[in-house]
Amino acid sequence: MDIEVLEGIFDANEKIARENEALFREHGVLAVNLMASPGAGKTSLIAGTLERLEGRVRVGVIEGDIASSVDAERIRAYGIPVIQINTGGACHLDAVMIRQALEHLDLSSLDVLIIENVGNLVCPAEFKLGEAMRAMILSVAEGHDKPLKYPLMFSEADVLVVNKTDLIGLGDFDLEELRATVTRMNPDIVIFETSCRTGEGLEEWIAWLRQQTGGRR
Amino acid sequence: MDIEVLEGIFDANEKIARENEALFREHGVLAVNLMASPGAGKTSLIAGTLERLEGRVRVGVIEGDIASSVDAERIRAYGIPVIQINTGGACHLDAVMIRQALEHLDLSSLDVLIIENVGNLVCPAEFKLGEAMRAMILSVAEGHDKPLKYPLMFSEADVLVVNKTDLIGLGDFDLEELRATVTRMNPDIVIFETSCRTGEGLEEWIAWLRQQTGGRR
Repeated sequence: MDIEVLEGIFDANEKIARENEALFREHGVLAVNLMASPGAGKTSLIAGTLERLEGRVRVGVIEGDIASSVDAERIRAYGIPVIQINTGGACHLDAVMIRQALEHLDLSSLDVLIIENVGNLVCPAEFKLGEAMRAMILSVAEGHDKPLKYPLMFSEADVLVVNKTDLIGLGDFDLEELRATVTRMNPDIVIFETSCRTGEGLEEWIAWLRQQTGGRR
Repeated sequence: MDIEVLEGIFDANEKIARENEALFREHGVLAVNLMASPGAGKTSLIAGTLERLEGRVRVGVIEGDIASSVDAERIRAYGIPVIQINTGGACHLDAVMIRQALEHLDLSSLDVLIIENVGNLVCPAEFKLGEAMRAMILSVAEGHDKPLKYPLMFSEADVLVVNKTDLIGLGDFDLEELRATVTRMNPDIVIFETSCRTGEGLEEWIAWLRQQTGGRR
């Protein structure tokens, strides 16, 4: 009898994640796992990216939410393939959910698949989906002390997008302190500063994202 | 063999939560479970409350974080009893953690115990701690659509504090739409509007909180 139930759960997820990863590689699709707190700007970053890409990169989106299809409807307006996953209570996406969503997506028609995880700075970091890139957003409104309180997410992310930079100066947010803390925890992390509301900084993020697709487009 | 592992976890938590609840009642302590996303203003609301109470209500605080003691240090400056719980990865507090913390608190010297949960709009709502009141904060920066995406938290809260109201007008946050959505899901919820940065609205919240302690002080 296997009593290591929790470990079993992670192992099973890891196995499916590797299968998803192989599938993405086979189709040359860059899969991005986009994670953040509720309301940090995940859907806004996707929308701002789609607007500026103007189809130069073929993007598909998987929207993960506990309930509702608010985000999927917003992204669908850009005329790209969108799948909504409702976790029905679960606090994160897992590899099986992604595998199920992939049955409804034509990977051969995509360059990038952005997977918007459930709004949660904790649990999503523990479950691999098969992604090649782990991107996280921190909103300026959340404060610069968050890496100390949610270390796993900040340690495992490949990219940090600091969003809502138009709010800098209204509170006590210290961008330099944030950069120092994050870089100490995760020296290889790539950091962007954006305001999805004003559009500031989005071009840098998008240029980098295009570069990651191998400059195919 | 009991195969309902998850149900077992919730049952065990519920049992300890009821014991904590009995302990709070016995000592006449109002226990408040304070929940919100990362950076919504939980610690700021506690700090603002302590500043304005000026000792008229005897408050103790339990700080729940995955890591660090940033918040406990900030609250300790007010000269009140503070216990820091580090969950070591877990995405929520549970009743056992609270029971352990209570061994270090003199309940007979308190009127109110504020338990600041881990910053997470999902998991904390699933675990009772023994609290008499479930309070949640939504930051204006998070957006008015959050109740649709995180329905359990908004359905189970007794109180919603809409914080960072000084940011209203800078984005597309619609307070009336938020109020309508939340009230439809949870008709008995009590809603306050605050800016912990400017202090606006804090007096109303504090007057109500004092009333909940039975006006003893």
